[in-house]
Amino acid sequence: MIEPVLANIDENFDAKLNHLKDLLKIKSISTDPAFAVDCDAAADWLVSDLQSIGFDASKRQTPGHPMVVAHHDGPGPHILFYGHYDVQPVDPIALWESDPFDPQIIEADLGPALRARGSSDDKGQIMTFVEACRSWKSVHGTLPCKITVFLEGEEESSSPSLVPFMEANKDELSADLVLICDTTLFGDNTPAIVTQLRGLLGEEFTIHGPKMDLHSGFFGGAAMNPGRVLAKIIASLHDDAGRITIPGFYDDVESPSPEVLDQWNRLDFNTADFLGAVGLSEPAGETSKSVLEMIWSRPTCEVNGMECGYTGEGFKTVLPAQASAKVSFRLVPGQDPHKIRDSFRKMVEGMIPKDCSVEWIGHGTSRASQMATDHPAFESAREALSDEWGVEAAFIGCGGSIPIAGHFQNILGLNSMLIGFGRENDAIHSPNEKYDLRSFQKGMRSWVRILDKISRG
Amino acid sequence: MIEPVLANIDENFDAKLNHLKDLLKIKSISTDPAFAVDCDAAADWLVSDLQSIGFDASKRQTPGHPMVVAHHDGPGPHILFYGHYDVQPVDPIALWESDPFDPQIIEADLGPALRARGSSDDKGQIMTFVEACRSWKSVHGTLPCKITVFLEGEEESSSPSLVPFMEANKDELSADLVLICDTTLFGDNTPAIVTQLRGLLGEEFTIHGPKMDLHSGFFGGAAMNPGRVLAKIIASLHDDAGRITIPGFYDDVESPSPEVLDQWNRLDFNTADFLGAVGLSEPAGETSKSVLEMIWSRPTCEVNGMECGYTGEGFKTVLPAQASAKVSFRLVPGQDPHKIRDSFRKMVEGMIPKDCSVEWIGHGTSRASQMATDHPAFESAREALSDEWGVEAAFIGCGGSIPIAGHFQNILGLNSMLIGFGRENDAIHSPNEKYDLRSFQKGMRSWVRILDKISRG
Repeated sequence: MIEPVLANIDENFDAKLNHLKDLLKIKSISTDPAFAVDCDAAADWLVSDLQSIGFDASKRQTPGHPMVVAHHDGPGPHILFYGHYDVQPVDPIALWESDPFDPQIIEADLGPALRARGSSDDKGQIMTFVEACRSWKSVHGTLPCKITVFLEGEEESSSPSLVPFMEANKDELSADLVLICDTTLFGDNTPAIVTQLRGLLGEEFTIHGPKMDLHSGFFGGAAMNPGRVLAKIIASLHDDAGRITIPGFYDDVESPSPEVLDQWNRLDFNTADFLGAVGLSEPAGETSKSVLEMIWSRPTCEVNGMECGYTGEGFKTVLPAQASAKVSFRLVPGQDPHKIRDSFRKMVEGMIPKDCSVEWIGHGTSRASQMATDHPAFESAREALSDEWGVEAAFIGCGGSIPIAGHFQNILGLNSMLIGFGRENDAIHSPNEKYDLRSFQKGMRSWVRILDKISRG
Repeated sequence: MIEPVLANIDENFDAKLNHLKDLLKIKSISTDPAFAVDCDAAADWLVSDLQSIGFDASKRQTPGHPMVVAHHDGPGPHILFYGHYDVQPVDPIALWESDPFDPQIIEADLGPALRARGSSDDKGQIMTFVEACRSWKSVHGTLPCKITVFLEGEEESSSPSLVPFMEANKDELSADLVLICDTTLFGDNTPAIVTQLRGLLGEEFTIHGPKMDLHSGFFGGAAMNPGRVLAKIIASLHDDAGRITIPGFYDDVESPSPEVLDQWNRLDFNTADFLGAVGLSEPAGETSKSVLEMIWSRPTCEVNGMECGYTGEGFKTVLPAQASAKVSFRLVPGQDPHKIRDSFRKMVEGMIPKDCSVEWIGHGTSRASQMATDHPAFESAREALSDEWGVEAAFIGCGGSIPIAGHFQNILGLNSMLIGFGRENDAIHSPNEKYDLRSFQKGMRSWVRILDKISRG
């Protein structure tokens, strides 16, 4: 049943690649208002393309860039596919080896690749799914299941219209399962399904001491230095074993199952390579945890910025009136950002000496996402990916905080599977972004296999 | 013998005040090259004025602004008087209530005062001594002792020419004792002789971790954060009792004698007022020491600046590649800045984890100065000041680091007495600088008494 579809993909590979190039030529940079017309053009292109496959597709206006929503009927489960057609800016343009919007085939580390802005993030990934549908429809005259395609044009500019649109269109966007294609393989060859994402909590605080900057000769030794208070607070956040000391911080942490941990341990992950790539050699987290646990399933507390006193050239013997820090927490399933915020603030406030005060700015919060991997689609997708790639697919975590899966969960009550075919070296958000042709081809073929397995249950 | 001189001062007070105003009208701002000609004019004015009293005075060129050196013969000991004719810039000019170079008599907290840039720092103070000499000469036709006046024009711009000039003119500047008039009373009414000054050591260091800024989602928890390392270092510099933890830091500290400490304890000093003026209430230094000890005779370690990661508006979940700090030490008699630097660096380097490195920038060092208060001139000056002010004069410390006394000690082998009549509220280096007329009058009278007592041994 799927063999002719896979064969159709291979036979029409060049045509599909040229078609992707057309989409990549559209300069749909969402952050820069100068490219609003290009974003609109990309949406139009996609609407037209989805219509050509038989989708009931339309461009939907928002206060920002438009959404593309397309429906196609079919038997079995209802799948909602999410991707984004907007791309990052191209600066610094001088570092590009060719025009970012004139796609070029280049030779990359694992074979030929397509170089263009958006090739990997996310137009190439979108088109793996769209082309899988096209080939299926072309061979069978129908699709294996009911499919809604939902594409946004503001992912690279914080998605201001996304939540309101989802809330206003709950019924239309309802489905049985969400497929998100905006992630990478694990390492070079292992297909992966992201099953957990860390949440985020951002805190900023300023410690005020003397009412003005003081001369360290006249007051030094007698006046409280807020820089010293700040350092004591930041230093106290971790113990010598790398654990975070905020009271109750780990109370609600849900650890991955032994099966998941066991699978992580079997992954082809090299700590020396991972850290070596950024000039490090020793894991800095909890001494009792593996590096994959540190970045996927353990919460963190990191100082992202710190400032006090004179930081320019030379020296100024000032005793600063204030000192400030930005601290962020990556949260894991089970943790409540508001509870962590309260406990953190209470701990900090307990360390403020009598002559100092603390002023807070709360930044964003998002909970971690934990996908319901006991949903049968996860096992189906894993088998399908393993079949295509000849390597056992992995359930992995992601240390970053991708809010989209949380929105589908919270607003639409939908479970998401994040499956992507990008690679860490695709240089997304950087000059010379590329997408391996292997990723494009095996990506399309992967979706055929996944849709087939999911549809057959 | 001195009564007619004191009477002469009082009788000619208005003329002397008008004469000081003439000097204050000269815009001798040393840091701004635009005022070089004014600095030169101030030196000429002083040369001419000292010649009018009978000094053999001359302007001496340097690579910067000129020195004024003037000699007058006399019996007994040879006194060298030091002051500076240059002044601070006037910015922010909008905050001045009258033209900074058009001296005005104003009503201040303790009576009339002269408002002008340089009135207290240091032209008014210089002229207390010069006018004392003028009145003495006018009454007696001679001076009570041999006197050299040595005035520089670069004190407010780090005195680049001072040490070379002193070294090149050792013989000419030799004397028995130095009098420096650039300090304040203790509190409102207590005449004071500064007998110890703290030294200074400035250190700056940067901790390097990952070779670039990292995404805290992808690396947070696994990669060492240099901000955390920096905080641990700064936090570890003081123990809970406020003592500095650098190994050997206190080893060579010479404490004031019990007599000096006893005298400090008897001074009219109010901790609540001192700290309250800058919005604080609790001394932050060693719990076993008084506030005057903290700021005069105990060494300090203060962070003057700290910087890492993102410190702009909003939030950036960066895991910073580096973190840096500026730390200064106020040193007390006995401490060797180089030994302290070595011990500090060794301690910091011992706290740098394997994946980080530290880079150093050494800033200036100066030793503390301890005057030889057993020199009989100190007791003579104290008696003279007590006579004039009707309050027992105090031997006090100074928490700042005035290098001039150290230069006289190290280059010329001379002991210095720092005696000044400014007040803490004179707003030196700020808008609306003033000098109390009481300071000017009693300052002149004080020098007459001091020169008399010192000359008679």
